[in-house]
Amino acid sequence: MPKISQKGQQMPESPIRKLVPYAEIAKKKGHKVYHLNIGQPDIKTPEVALNAIKNNDIKILEYSHSAGFESYRTKLSAYYKTHGLPIEVADIIITTGGSEALLFAMGSTMDTDDEIIIPEPFYANYNGFSTASGVKVVPVISTIDEGFALPPISAFEKLITPKTKAILICNPGNPTGYLYSKEEIYQLAEIVKKHDLFLIADEVYREFIYDGDKHFSVMNVPGIEENAIMIDSVSKRYSMCGARIGCIVSKNKEVMSTAMKFAQARLSPPTYAQIASEAALDTPQSYFDDVINEYKERRDTLISELNKIEGVKVATPKGAFYCIAKLPVKSADDFAKWLLETYDNNGETVMVAPAAGFYSTPNVGLDEIRIAYVLKKEDLIRSVAILKDALIKYKEK
Amino acid sequence: MPKISQKGQQMPESPIRKLVPYAEIAKKKGHKVYHLNIGQPDIKTPEVALNAIKNNDIKILEYSHSAGFESYRTKLSAYYKTHGLPIEVADIIITTGGSEALLFAMGSTMDTDDEIIIPEPFYANYNGFSTASGVKVVPVISTIDEGFALPPISAFEKLITPKTKAILICNPGNPTGYLYSKEEIYQLAEIVKKHDLFLIADEVYREFIYDGDKHFSVMNVPGIEENAIMIDSVSKRYSMCGARIGCIVSKNKEVMSTAMKFAQARLSPPTYAQIASEAALDTPQSYFDDVINEYKERRDTLISELNKIEGVKVATPKGAFYCIAKLPVKSADDFAKWLLETYDNNGETVMVAPAAGFYSTPNVGLDEIRIAYVLKKEDLIRSVAILKDALIKYKEK
Ligand SMILES: Cc1ncc(COP(=O)(O)O)c(C=O)c1O
Ligand SMILES: Cc1ncc(COP(=O)(O)O)c(C=O)c1O
Repeated sequence: MPKISQKGQQMPESPIRKLVPYAEIAKKKGHKVYHLNIGQPDIKTPEVALNAIKNNDIKILEYSHSAGFESYRTKLSAYYKTHGLPIEVADIIITTGGSEALLFAMGSTMDTDDEIIIPEPFYANYNGFSTASGVKVVPVISTIDEGFALPPISAFEKLITPKTKAILICNPGNPTGYLYSKEEIYQLAEIVKKHDLFLIADEVYREFIYDGDKHFSVMNVPGIEENAIMIDSVSKRYSMCGARIGCIVSKNKEVMSTAMKFAQARLSPPTYAQIASEAALDTPQSYFDDVINEYKERRDTLISELNKIEGVKVATPKGAFYCIAKLPVKSADDFAKWLLETYDNNGETVMVAPAAGFYSTPNVGLDEIRIAYVLKKEDLIRSVAILKDALIKYKEK
Repeated sequence: MPKISQKGQQMPESPIRKLVPYAEIAKKKGHKVYHLNIGQPDIKTPEVALNAIKNNDIKILEYSHSAGFESYRTKLSAYYKTHGLPIEVADIIITTGGSEALLFAMGSTMDTDDEIIIPEPFYANYNGFSTASGVKVVPVISTIDEGFALPPISAFEKLITPKTKAILICNPGNPTGYLYSKEEIYQLAEIVKKHDLFLIADEVYREFIYDGDKHFSVMNVPGIEENAIMIDSVSKRYSMCGARIGCIVSKNKEVMSTAMKFAQARLSPPTYAQIASEAALDTPQSYFDDVINEYKERRDTLISELNKIEGVKVATPKGAFYCIAKLPVKSADDFAKWLLETYDNNGETVMVAPAAGFYSTPNVGLDEIRIAYVLKKEDLIRSVAILKDALIKYKEK
């Protein structure tokens, strides 16, 4: 019997899917499960996007340009400019989700055994894309006690070797909700300039910022035009996760012409989804105001409820729609399984993502969970009440 | 300035896109260009698929299951069974085009520096996917003089090393139009069983078979269930290239659970496109009868017209919609550029794909071109007439 690849063996399982068999058990028992584990928003997709699809008049569903519709890239460039990002049409390649943009970015800049430094905890699929690309993730730890702030420059410099090719950040962060300040981005810029590294910034949650803070993009730092690669996506911005449209953005011509070769090999991004994404650019500002407002209220509700539970520690997220909570348990993994397999509160329970899967250092974050606040306020309140009761019962058992 | 990857430098340019700048020149001169170079069919997408999209009532465009809609996989399994392929739901993962299925197949079975044997000439993007996966392509030559038949077993066995992990075939073949016989598939089965290799069969042109021949799939060979991986796609079957839906199929559980980890990392295939693809399964047989008939007539027209040109040799394709033609020129590459840059016939010219890009052995196929017969009969006749005149003028120059 032929053997699968080592790479395949090393591909990590997603930490948000590992518990799915346990959720099946809860469902078989007839228990209602509140899903705090996944980042699938319950927000409606903008009408303009949905209507563009219903009204399309395609007769032959053709391949598009490998870089995506020219009309879409043109409008997208204008959108970025309106939002203060100096991005030209030539700086953009449309991809199949931010996911593919991450793969193209890694493939264009790194070879087997090259190293990428990522502040952890980080979006778990960075592990998958790195493994698929043969790249080694070198984590630099950010802690809940520091509110997940950027580790000091010295912490990065200790990790840089001749194999280091890039630093990858997620801003605002999944799973931390941390928003890097302008000063922090400049610090990173200094490091990548000094050591000739790429700075890959996953900015797919750019619009989701609360408390009047301002997002600061790597595309706005003068002097790192050749280093900066931005990853973007329509998935969260327009609640269009199923579209599978994102983009890779850079001013570095060599990076873009290389990414283009990856793009040509897979022919084109999905056509219908591009139609929806192009139309989505006409979404009125009021849509975003409502959405941000809704998320802000959810966040405030979640954090204030969590803070009422003794022994729970949480860093208030400034952006995105996730937070990391430290629980008074030894193994959040065991607790999360127990929540689904054994526990219920009036026939209801919650599903959370154990945070260890968001760290690449072993045995870190074992007592932490990630919560996605993509549920209605009432459901969040109920979920945290369940969590509170469960923590007591779990201790007693 | 940070450097791009070696992998990125090695990524090949697509041979069908290399000439695009020359086509721009022809268009700037106002010349009409007949495109014999690309495999984008001009056939209408089935109404059932288009209508399913127009009538969809999605409110939130969510991620789907990473393996694709369960409903789609269930219907697809039934479709395969109707066509004599014993494929269960669990044997299928829906992918973003056959392209992604090829990437998942390579990633699941091969590591950096592993080797894959591919009969050449082959679909040029196999080079791109191999480079992206760090895999080395080992070509085994099939020749126009043998009508591109499978090379003898001894030719394969000479190439097998401890690094060899798989044999990849395209059946029916792009760019050759060659259809492997049952005997040839059994020969391959023998080799992969004996040497514990995977047999990856790209069968995306399965429906396009002429002259009453029958397609024989690797999924129909008893005894190689653990070796066989099938690649499929809706792109050509339903003229839905822009959907970006395909699948990877295997009975090997380890392969499927590994491919699933790649699938989970990128979250899901496109949702709208899955709706269209699921609906497309209800396309009436009459649609296919018409399409196959149309392609058969195009093929017959093309081949008989080409055979009228002195010095041109062509192997009659038995499937797909491509053929390789050997021209009485030294460099098909130079000829193809000249056709666009310099030549015209009453303001018209043709764009062809020099075949060298479909070989991975250097300096083979230099006098060959690939022609895609995706144009109407009248246009094919006119195109070949232009080619004939051009060959005379090119010789005289
Ligand atoms: C931080 C981050 N980056 C990238 C992605 C990938 O999203 P997509 O491929 O849907 O654009 C996600 C999805 O959850 C994410 O959280
Ligand atoms: C032989 C072959 N395999 C795979 C593909 C990829 O097609 P898609 O990704 O559109 O399914 C093509 C496209 O032309 C092809 O010719």
